[in-house]
Amino acid sequence: MDMRKGAPAVVLLSGGLDSTTVLAIAAREAGQRVHALSFAYGQRHALELRYAARQAARFEVAAHEVVELGALGRLVAGATSLVADSPLAVPAAGARDPDSAIPTTYVPGRNTVFLSYALAWAEALGARDIWVGVNAVDYSGYPDCRPEFIASFERTARLATRMGVEAEDDAGVAIHAPLIELRKHEIIARGLALGVDYGETTSCYDPTPAGEDGLALACGRCESCALRRAGFADAGVDDPTRYVPGA
Amino acid sequence: MDMRKGAPAVVLLSGGLDSTTVLAIAAREAGQRVHALSFAYGQRHALELRYAARQAARFEVAAHEVVELGALGRLVAGATSLVADSPLAVPAAGARDPDSAIPTTYVPGRNTVFLSYALAWAEALGARDIWVGVNAVDYSGYPDCRPEFIASFERTARLATRMGVEAEDDAGVAIHAPLIELRKHEIIARGLALGVDYGETTSCYDPTPAGEDGLALACGRCESCALRRAGFADAGVDDPTRYVPGA
Repeated sequence: MDMRKGAPAVVLLSGGLDSTTVLAIAAREAGQRVHALSFAYGQRHALELRYAARQAARFEVAAHEVVELGALGRLVAGATSLVADSPLAVPAAGARDPDSAIPTTYVPGRNTVFLSYALAWAEALGARDIWVGVNAVDYSGYPDCRPEFIASFERTARLATRMGVEAEDDAGVAIHAPLIELRKHEIIARGLALGVDYGETTSCYDPTPAGEDGLALACGRCESCALRRAGFADAGVDDPTRYVPGA
Repeated sequence: MDMRKGAPAVVLLSGGLDSTTVLAIAAREAGQRVHALSFAYGQRHALELRYAARQAARFEVAAHEVVELGALGRLVAGATSLVADSPLAVPAAGARDPDSAIPTTYVPGRNTVFLSYALAWAEALGARDIWVGVNAVDYSGYPDCRPEFIASFERTARLATRMGVEAEDDAGVAIHAPLIELRKHEIIARGLALGVDYGETTSCYDPTPAGEDGLALACGRCESCALRRAGFADAGVDDPTRYVPGA
């Protein structure tokens, strides 16, 4: 991987545990000049964008863009429980559809759209590195979090762009997914070593706004909460997540 | 190709010559139930969206969505002449950058973003066919119009989606680019045979609004105008395009 120190890079940042860890890796380990990219797509958990802004500030990114993708949420609302307009409820952890290994929280096309925007911005910036916090171990089985998807998107991105066609080393853009084969507790350990404050991240799919500061109280029952909670337990560190009472 | 008659399909529709021809092929030849998808991305030639709406009505599509991608235009404005916010002017046909075979009218990531939205909508609709009017013969050398890009995006799309993972025939979505190897005059002949009214399409990158109806007068000097004009000449049919006086 060609991760040049000081070079511009685009980091997909949701404000969650995984993407914040990737932000820390890109900024502190790789030493890149981070352009953070977040999306408002009508997600139920739009509160995550406040966390994304806090983390962008904490890691002193060169730029942070929040792109409005309201149309995406509208186009897919009938096919995912994760957007606020959906008629479907967010399922509890473990409550799987008997007809599918992929839960309803899967959002059609989401990571492809997100990475496409990252690609467009990267090319305009002259950035060759795109970072994404997908994980294919402690995850919900989303097809667009798997290594084969990321590798294929990278090949497509190189064919799609001027930099891919004209790069002297034939490389073009690189998609870095440093968490993809890690267990959740390994992700947490890596982030803690880089100074991530996980109390300032949110993973819940169905959060409740907290009165005093408008931040999120996690539901404690969705799959994302379950994976996160188990990660802290397995890492042997206190879970800094604020849950709704009783969760 | 599995293009089932009566099945839902997503057609990328700009209101230009190529995408309108593809609309005619999808609707009339393949007999699919078309969901047309257009984008407002800050393009200089946003007038094309009026043509897209007219063509969507003419071909009686099941739905026509115009997605606002203003952020895309903003993110890439420094790297393309095709968006209204760009400091670059649209070059005249043939006026190439000596350092690059790809002209400044190339928009970073555009077709990847467009196809990603089409993919998201297709999956939500249960559509397995996506149609796009890219062409790699009489074209401007954009990397994301080449057959290898389309083939790679199709592979990525199958890996990205529930339908790709769960399709019994392992196929998932198909990206149809029926014009990709055609000359412009062949595209025109094919569209005329399907009843396309090319006077109701626009290809110009830098059009002038016409007083009476708000439609576009083509500049006659950009590369898109040059390719279109030559196509009508080679097809041996009258060019129905309305040009600015003197063009």
